[in-house]
Amino acid sequence: MQHPHQHPSPLKGVVAPVITPFDEALDPDPVRFAEICAWLLRSGCTGLAPFGTTSEANSLSTQERIDLLEAAVKAGVDASRLVPGTGCCSVTETALLSRHAMETGCAGVMTLPPFYYKGASDEGLYRYFASLIERVGDARLKIYLYHIPPIAQVPLSHELVTRLVGDFPEVVVGLKDSSGDWHYTEGLLGKLPGFGAFFGSEERLLATLNAGGAGCISATANVNAAGIRAVWDAWGTPRADSLQASASAVRRAIAHHPLIPAVKYLLAHYLRDPGLVRVRPPLTAFSEEKGRALVETLERDCAFGLEEALS
Amino acid sequence: MQHPHQHPSPLKGVVAPVITPFDEALDPDPVRFAEICAWLLRSGCTGLAPFGTTSEANSLSTQERIDLLEAAVKAGVDASRLVPGTGCCSVTETALLSRHAMETGCAGVMTLPPFYYKGASDEGLYRYFASLIERVGDARLKIYLYHIPPIAQVPLSHELVTRLVGDFPEVVVGLKDSSGDWHYTEGLLGKLPGFGAFFGSEERLLATLNAGGAGCISATANVNAAGIRAVWDAWGTPRADSLQASASAVRRAIAHHPLIPAVKYLLAHYLRDPGLVRVRPPLTAFSEEKGRALVETLERDCAFGLEEALS
Repeated sequence: MQHPHQHPSPLKGVVAPVITPFDEALDPDPVRFAEICAWLLRSGCTGLAPFGTTSEANSLSTQERIDLLEAAVKAGVDASRLVPGTGCCSVTETALLSRHAMETGCAGVMTLPPFYYKGASDEGLYRYFASLIERVGDARLKIYLYHIPPIAQVPLSHELVTRLVGDFPEVVVGLKDSSGDWHYTEGLLGKLPGFGAFFGSEERLLATLNAGGAGCISATANVNAAGIRAVWDAWGTPRADSLQASASAVRRAIAHHPLIPAVKYLLAHYLRDPGLVRVRPPLTAFSEEKGRALVETLERDCAFGLEEALS
Repeated sequence: MQHPHQHPSPLKGVVAPVITPFDEALDPDPVRFAEICAWLLRSGCTGLAPFGTTSEANSLSTQERIDLLEAAVKAGVDASRLVPGTGCCSVTETALLSRHAMETGCAGVMTLPPFYYKGASDEGLYRYFASLIERVGDARLKIYLYHIPPIAQVPLSHELVTRLVGDFPEVVVGLKDSSGDWHYTEGLLGKLPGFGAFFGSEERLLATLNAGGAGCISATANVNAAGIRAVWDAWGTPRADSLQASASAVRRAIAHHPLIPAVKYLLAHYLRDPGLVRVRPPLTAFSEEKGRALVETLERDCAFGLEEALS
């Protein structure tokens, strides 16, 4: 039986997996990245998870991730609100990035399982995370496990998660559930009350909070931080349900499309920065035609607007 | 219409994706690695593909791969017989490793598609490889595409391969087919006569050669180099079929088990080097019990033996 306060999540609320801006040569743009991080925190995000799936993190080298994180923190972004993704296929690189994140003052790290080999056993995955914790060797380390079976194709079973939390209660403090399956988060919170679980979509933000979870980490928080933050702020008040319905409608309109190109198109459009549409291969950018139709749908059906621009 | 000699493969024959030896801390052992490379070339391999799936390459950092390759070449392993795996999820790291391999004098590189994002379009994958070739910027570059849908979960369509060969005939010279589906290699050689196609198992070595392909790159070449080499040498002679049958029987006995732990167990056993069983998580090592049963099966049913030891 776990105690609620054995796994204190330093992060709660509305978290955006920040998109990665690329220049014309498709190299990351650290200055623009820092500006977008600062803007998202001003816009309503309580925290940021740079280098997630939406960030195209696995299309970046370890050095590119290190350079981007350092640029953001040097530009004044509060590291204590950052939980960068650090999960690579090799424990060596995951340890390198995780140690760097903690040394930079980040609140924690978000960590994929090693995702090359499929059909890995719970025992093998346990050893991977145990070995990661040992290699990082930093008492400050806080890990959010990253469960995203549709893409990683390597799920994290409840048994694995509870074993890791049982053995490393000060380290394994939360999980991002991008399975799309609410029962996964609900069941996990039943086994680990108070665990720092984030659902991967704002559509279940109130449900997650009601179940004792921490919040949501969602691609669409890149473009609707204020709308999702309003749900978080209204939790427990009569307005919560209608705000949830509004945020969910925006999410559904966008998630109807490939999420990463769609989110990047919307940022490019509303921030008047056309280069933000760029993605690294193997992704391909949203077409202008699809983008315009999406903007029209959002503004017509969801009364969506993004008034603030990058400073 | 492709010309047979537009894509001259520098590599032919029997190629082992060399296993990676780990020390007690599960860090790679460059000295042992170089010894194993030299031993495999003496044992019958015509070439080596270090840093393949069997090598647990994606469980290594880019720096670990660089260090291992340099150690082998410095120890006297002929770089012109090496086609190291260089495929990471990021084009930046794949380009870094590919450039390093060519600068080290390797015959070419074996390159996975970016394997994190699933459902990538042919257009996105084309741009990835085109961007890789541009970033490497080395006229000596020779790429063997690595088609392994059961693990990477990102297949390379015939259309993509022929488009790449058409646009980069001097660079894209071959492919390793680890789909397990002979029709893939057979169909590809029908479209690209003389293409440097390697099937991922020696069970189709004669079939590949008869179809105009280049040979096999097979996990079990780590433990049966001589037996597979005998098939290659006998191609076109009356002895070929029975040698093929013998090599195939060994392959099937081993491939009945998880290949990487099984191959490492066999090397540890026959080379009298118990530490070779070690694998990095998320893989788990073969148990002594399963290993002994496998050795017994091989020696009883396949008259298998590995007489040579590491010098």
